[in-house]
This record gives sequence, structure tokens and C-alpha cells, in this order.
Amino acid sequence: MSVAKEFEAANAKYAASFTKGDLQLPPQRKTAVVACMDARLDPARALGLEEGDVHVIRNAGGRATDALRSVIISQQLLGTREIVIVHHTNCGMLTFTDEDLKDKIRADLHQNADHIAFLAFKDVEQSVRDDIKILKDSPLVLDVPITGYVYEVETGKIVRVEEN
Amino acid sequence: MSVAKEFEAANAKYAASFTKGDLQLPPQRKTAVVACMDARLDPARALGLEEGDVHVIRNAGGRATDALRSVIISQQLLGTREIVIVHHTNCGMLTFTDEDLKDKIRADLHQNADHIAFLAFKDVEQSVRDDIKILKDSPLVLDVPITGYVYEVETGKIVRVEEN
Repeated sequence: MSVAKEFEAANAKYAASFTKGDLQLPPQRKTAVVACMDARLDPARALGLEEGDVHVIRNAGGRATDALRSVIISQQLLGTREIVIVHHTNCGMLTFTDEDLKDKIRADLHQNADHIAFLAFKDVEQSVRDDIKILKDSPLVLDVPITGYVYEVETGKIVRVEEN
Repeated sequence: MSVAKEFEAANAKYAASFTKGDLQLPPQRKTAVVACMDARLDPARALGLEEGDVHVIRNAGGRATDALRSVIISQQLLGTREIVIVHHTNCGMLTFTDEDLKDKIRADLHQNADHIAFLAFKDVEQSVRDDIKILKDSPLVLDVPITGYVYEVETGKIVRVEEN
């Protein structure tokens, strides 16, 4: 069975007891979370989110550059006024370099991916600091509170990253 | 109190009963979900996901173009072999055009955002079909099953979008 079919079965149960059909489009808690796509991180459970609360933007690494389009839409059209960045320990982005991946794509897929910045990193606290700075420095992002965390996949804890 | 501080309080409770510290990096169910960042959609609850199961990539609209970097990393480095796309009814992306948003940014922020494709759309079933096609046509994406759904924010149901 495809995983999609399993999702359909799980969703039938969710929908059967669904009571949140009148939530508004703009996020209730006026916040955008930018987090890694990692399977072990569930932002809703780990941060106490209910449906309707916040935008959740996720990509490989939880990188700000890749989230910029979504952050702009979140702020300009849907009124969010706080940003929380969540990267995590044991991230896949720590295990390769952009050049490694481009070489693999050349070898395995016979394709050139030199036009893509894969945004790998070597230090997860520094990647959080870098991403806070990218958002703070962007003239397209409003001057709002931005807080960064490292989620520990080993403990379930978020640890705040102090800016340098 | 900032929302970040509220997240810290909620996370302390989550971490206190955390028992999943030995999950592996590659997603157990070998799937990447590409979904909208909308606050009303919780992919974990709506699709029956546990920590460790799948990659969850989210952006404004759940657009494939914006998810491409993450999908490549997910497949090439972390072994996922199925993709599920989830857009939804009453999406913010249905409420504006790229030109509207660029005009607003020019007026409110005095900035030029002409270099950004905001990827707004007019029809949510068609946006799912378009994004399936983008991934299927990309030489950088493996030939894997791709299934697309519209999540109904009114009912909690996912409805499969048939390809044309």
C-alpha cells in the first residue's frame, strides 16, 4: 500500500471528529515558525501549537533564504509579527557539502545542479544565527522579534541560541 | 509575553515526557510531504504522522518550485521514495496576484520585489496538478509515486486530486 493510501485512512479518522471548521485564515498567534523538514521534529507537538495558531514554514535545514518568499507573504498578507527559527541536532544538513551533493547528482542522475544552493552547514548554532541575521538584514522582512532555537532530537528540548 | 516564551513553556512539558530520543535520521516511512504553511493545517494530526515518519516541507501555498531543493535532499541523501502534495481550500494564495503583492511592497516598504516569484494561484486543484507536473518533469526528482490532495479547512478532510 502506498503511504498516500495510509494517509487517507488516517485522515478519515481525523475528519470524523473534526470540530475546527470555522478557524480564520490569519494565524491567531501572529507568528511564523521556520523549521527544518526533519521527520523527528513535530513543531506542533514540540511547541504546543493548535490548528489556527501559526504559520509553519519547513525546508531542508529550516533555512531563512529558502523561507523568504513565505515569510514575506506571512507578514504582508496575513499579519504575522514574530518569527521563530528552529534548527536541530543531528541534522542531515551537517552531513554533506553542497559540492558533495552536486557530485552525487552528476554521478547518479547525470544532471547538473550547479544552479541550486543546497544550503548545507557545519554548525547548527551558527546556522541559526546566520538565519536570524538574514531575516533581520532583509529589507523585505519587517522589524519583528526573531528568536532562534536548536531542537535536541535526543531530548525533545528546544535550546535558545543567543545572538553573538 | 512573546510567543517564543510561550513555545518554551509548552516545550518544557513536551520534553518532560519525551521518549523518542533514539529515532533515526532517515524518515521511517520514506515519504516527503509538501504542504502549505497555513496555520489551520496540521499535517501530523491530519495525516496520522508520528515523529520519525516523514519529511514535512511547508511553504506559502505548498508550491513545488519552492520545495525542490528540499525534495532533492530528501531523496538523494535521506532515501525518501514517495511524495504527497497537500494544498487546501480558502488558501491565502488565492487572494492576491504576484503583482498586487509587489505593488504593496513598493508602497509600504519602499522596496522592489520584482525578483521574487510569489507563486500565487487562482484554482487550488489546478495548483496541485501543476505542482505534481513540476516534480514529475524535473530531471532532478526521482520517478516516484506523487499523490496530490486538497485539504478542506472546513471539514478536516483530504480530497485526492486526479491528474488530467
